[in-house]
Amino acid sequence: MANKDVTDPARMEKIVSLCKRRGFVFQAGELYGGLNGVWDYGPLGAELKRNLKDYWWRKTVQERDDVLGMDGSILTMEQVLVASGHVGGFSDPMSDCLLSKARLRADQIPEQDGTVVWFTGAGHPASEWSIQREFAVLIAPGKEVGEAHKTARKYYSEFLANKQVSPKEIELVEDRREEVTGTTRFNPDNGSLLTEPRQFNLMLQTNFGATGEQIAYLRPETAQSIFVQYKNVLDSNRVKLPFGIAQVGKSFRNEINPRNFTFRSREFEQMEIEYFCHPDDGMRLTDEWLETRLSFYEEIGIPRAKLHINDIPDGERAFYSKKTYDIEYEFPFGVQELEGVAYRTDYDLGVHQKAAGKPLLYFDEETKEKFLPHVVEPSAGCDRTVLALICEAFDEETLTDDKDKEDVRTVLRFKPALAPVKVGIFPLLKKNEEQVRIAKEIQKSLQKWMTVSYDDGGAVGRRYRRQDEVGTPFCITVDFETLGEENADLKDTVTIRHRDSMEQERLPISGLLAWLLERVR
Amino acid sequence: MANKDVTDPARMEKIVSLCKRRGFVFQAGELYGGLNGVWDYGPLGAELKRNLKDYWWRKTVQERDDVLGMDGSILTMEQVLVASGHVGGFSDPMSDCLLSKARLRADQIPEQDGTVVWFTGAGHPASEWSIQREFAVLIAPGKEVGEAHKTARKYYSEFLANKQVSPKEIELVEDRREEVTGTTRFNPDNGSLLTEPRQFNLMLQTNFGATGEQIAYLRPETAQSIFVQYKNVLDSNRVKLPFGIAQVGKSFRNEINPRNFTFRSREFEQMEIEYFCHPDDGMRLTDEWLETRLSFYEEIGIPRAKLHINDIPDGERAFYSKKTYDIEYEFPFGVQELEGVAYRTDYDLGVHQKAAGKPLLYFDEETKEKFLPHVVEPSAGCDRTVLALICEAFDEETLTDDKDKEDVRTVLRFKPALAPVKVGIFPLLKKNEEQVRIAKEIQKSLQKWMTVSYDDGGAVGRRYRRQDEVGTPFCITVDFETLGEENADLKDTVTIRHRDSMEQERLPISGLLAWLLERVR
Repeated sequence: MANKDVTDPARMEKIVSLCKRRGFVFQAGELYGGLNGVWDYGPLGAELKRNLKDYWWRKTVQERDDVLGMDGSILTMEQVLVASGHVGGFSDPMSDCLLSKARLRADQIPEQDGTVVWFTGAGHPASEWSIQREFAVLIAPGKEVGEAHKTARKYYSEFLANKQVSPKEIELVEDRREEVTGTTRFNPDNGSLLTEPRQFNLMLQTNFGATGEQIAYLRPETAQSIFVQYKNVLDSNRVKLPFGIAQVGKSFRNEINPRNFTFRSREFEQMEIEYFCHPDDGMRLTDEWLETRLSFYEEIGIPRAKLHINDIPDGERAFYSKKTYDIEYEFPFGVQELEGVAYRTDYDLGVHQKAAGKPLLYFDEETKEKFLPHVVEPSAGCDRTVLALICEAFDEETLTDDKDKEDVRTVLRFKPALAPVKVGIFPLLKKNEEQVRIAKEIQKSLQKWMTVSYDDGGAVGRRYRRQDEVGTPFCITVDFETLGEENADLKDTVTIRHRDSMEQERLPISGLLAWLLERVR
Repeated sequence: MANKDVTDPARMEKIVSLCKRRGFVFQAGELYGGLNGVWDYGPLGAELKRNLKDYWWRKTVQERDDVLGMDGSILTMEQVLVASGHVGGFSDPMSDCLLSKARLRADQIPEQDGTVVWFTGAGHPASEWSIQREFAVLIAPGKEVGEAHKTARKYYSEFLANKQVSPKEIELVEDRREEVTGTTRFNPDNGSLLTEPRQFNLMLQTNFGATGEQIAYLRPETAQSIFVQYKNVLDSNRVKLPFGIAQVGKSFRNEINPRNFTFRSREFEQMEIEYFCHPDDGMRLTDEWLETRLSFYEEIGIPRAKLHINDIPDGERAFYSKKTYDIEYEFPFGVQELEGVAYRTDYDLGVHQKAAGKPLLYFDEETKEKFLPHVVEPSAGCDRTVLALICEAFDEETLTDDKDKEDVRTVLRFKPALAPVKVGIFPLLKKNEEQVRIAKEIQKSLQKWMTVSYDDGGAVGRRYRRQDEVGTPFCITVDFETLGEENADLKDTVTIRHRDSMEQERLPISGLLAWLLERVR
């Protein structure tokens, strides 16, 4: 799916570095070397993510008549995930490398043919014999099979060197040969044969209870708690079909190969809607939700032109899905999925009804029809969307000053509603008590309504740049004119500076709150 | 600590029932029999919890200059929790019952003395011999030791009966006797000897990576990710001591005995602040934070009179804490902790600095002093506070109508800022198209700003009651006067009805938003 044309590793590196430097994202446990595929949000990242989740909730739950919220547990009963198919089927095919013992996703490696030559390798002297291996290498069709010894020696030496073992002598014994035709996979890193693929479950498991007798899983998606509580929500609320249940929360997957910064993580947050409807309406509502979700991304600052819609063809969708759209974004590391809008039919309610032995039917008072509702699921990745917001907002603007000197301004062009800090507040002179007093007063009056940042360090130009770099849309400077010292007309006014245009205007202090509220919500 | 005087199980039962009936709280996986000690929040519970967390964040992070937010991962590296002492020490002493194999908290059971008589028990016929047990019973000092056989037979029969085994004959063989003096514990449920207490770790563990080789824990508190990222936050933000880092998020503990509805759960959410300061300021700031937090509870509707402050005496605090206050609330099931305000000294930063081998010192630019900051930790339980809000809000009011008929009104008297739904909107007559149109227009205009509930079912009085029961502070009714049919002066006005006083007033539609915003924030 990745569109190679849009990848830009240099841009991605700058973004990752900015995220660390300014406190958007840190690796979890970094102090101890870090937990692979797990991330912590620092002060600015936490605000950005909060803003995104709040905006989603407001648009999805608060402003709609037909969607209710819920907040389910992460710990999930085994029965739930057996019924949903996650315990049996939520897995990737994995193969082990005979030489390095690394485990790899088999379906990402092509099958090959040729002659497989098996060896047992060992190193001398004896003290370094510990790392013996049986492994095999491939000799392509038509190539000299005698090459196998040279190839095996090369790979085995590299393997020992990686393990910090450098024996004086390497001993390789050829065990057997076999011809294979397109059925065997080899480790692309070291050429060694891989084992047959085995299914590897992607869920994280835990145990609790007095003797650890109770198995639970960390949910692999928030959706299942919605299906399991569907009847409780229906019975405790006066709702009619079609209606949705929405949830924001963390899910967990044992990603074998976490990558692309926070994009593919082992712990991640989802924003999911399960929209229950009459079977006749499923296809239409799937298309409607796709449009609703595309508008959402535009509203938060991700232009339609950078979004790709992938209409998953027959045979590639989950077996129960009649229609699935992936909404993808042009990340600097390629075009990747932000959200899936899937028409899941009555699969989920059906399996839970059967497994739990309790009816989950809906009774339509008007038509007197009794049926299992169908479900349309718009399921968005929260961390992915945060990352898309940062990637989309990141800009390096080359400015030319009066003396024709070039200068690069780093700026995060967040929509004001999403920006982690809404306004920077500066006294022009840190030592001017009156300016400081007024600036702090403005700070107090605004921070009941929005996140503000007070900064009195260094030249105002540098303070603007610091705010640009974290995407603060507006900066307020209290200066000598605010004090009315130069022009009585300007007393009690401040400078407002716009992040994107860098233009400045003067506003009365009394009008600041209303002016800002109109722009930051 | 529990003050028996305030317990009221009948009240608690009504609250639990209301929570289920109206969709505040459901047991996780209820459809499958339920996951013990794990809860899902339904639509209203999710809104209430969101409001609490948002209010806490606003007061703690947004409105303060000296506290930054963060959002750390749940999956936590083993090294972090080894250093913090959780892997070694975060445990309860547990004993197993020899007869039933139940595991019990040893420190909640008194030690006894007397004669311990050991038996091996079995039942006939042979097909039911499977449940053999070696166990022991206590004969109190001065009592006839011969009683042991009778006692043992009674307990063993009950045990078999509980296991659905009813043998024709029970065989009990006495093995040995020993005198004990105040060193032995017995299962209060069946009189059987318990094993010596062993420490039982309260953390939930999981494994990930390709071969499950990586151990991680679900964090037992949000605090540790703050300590581990303290330096990253400091370095990426222009902050000086004293300053705090705040976090809201889920934590997990293997509670052996989850109880009191959502109060003691295995999965729970915390609202924690780690406030870093100069060592000289720790004691003073602990007292200051206690006051700040008490005011917070008053603001959200928990009166000071129902809060108890427990100043934990020397010897009962964690060994590193110089001062700990527990803030407790009078729940219907007893006085129980909502929050701890603990002066943790430099214990946490100290252990992480040592274990990670990286300096976490703070350099004071002004005094040129270099030191490890001390920490004051106000740590609140989010689910507990939600439960306290519901318990405090719950009221049954006896009303007397014109005909002296008594009627009980159930009402949740939430502060408007915390109420899950801010306003109910009703057309007086469902079939009056004009009323419906206006009511829906009002709904549209308000729901951009707050959670609203549209209801057109049944008599208005019944709709008021439904809103009272979930704590909606205001209800708006569009009636014939709104249409100007009876009195032109009342055209475009609506009835606003107050939940607590049940009083009604008329307001112009154009002024509704401002009137409500002033009251619900």
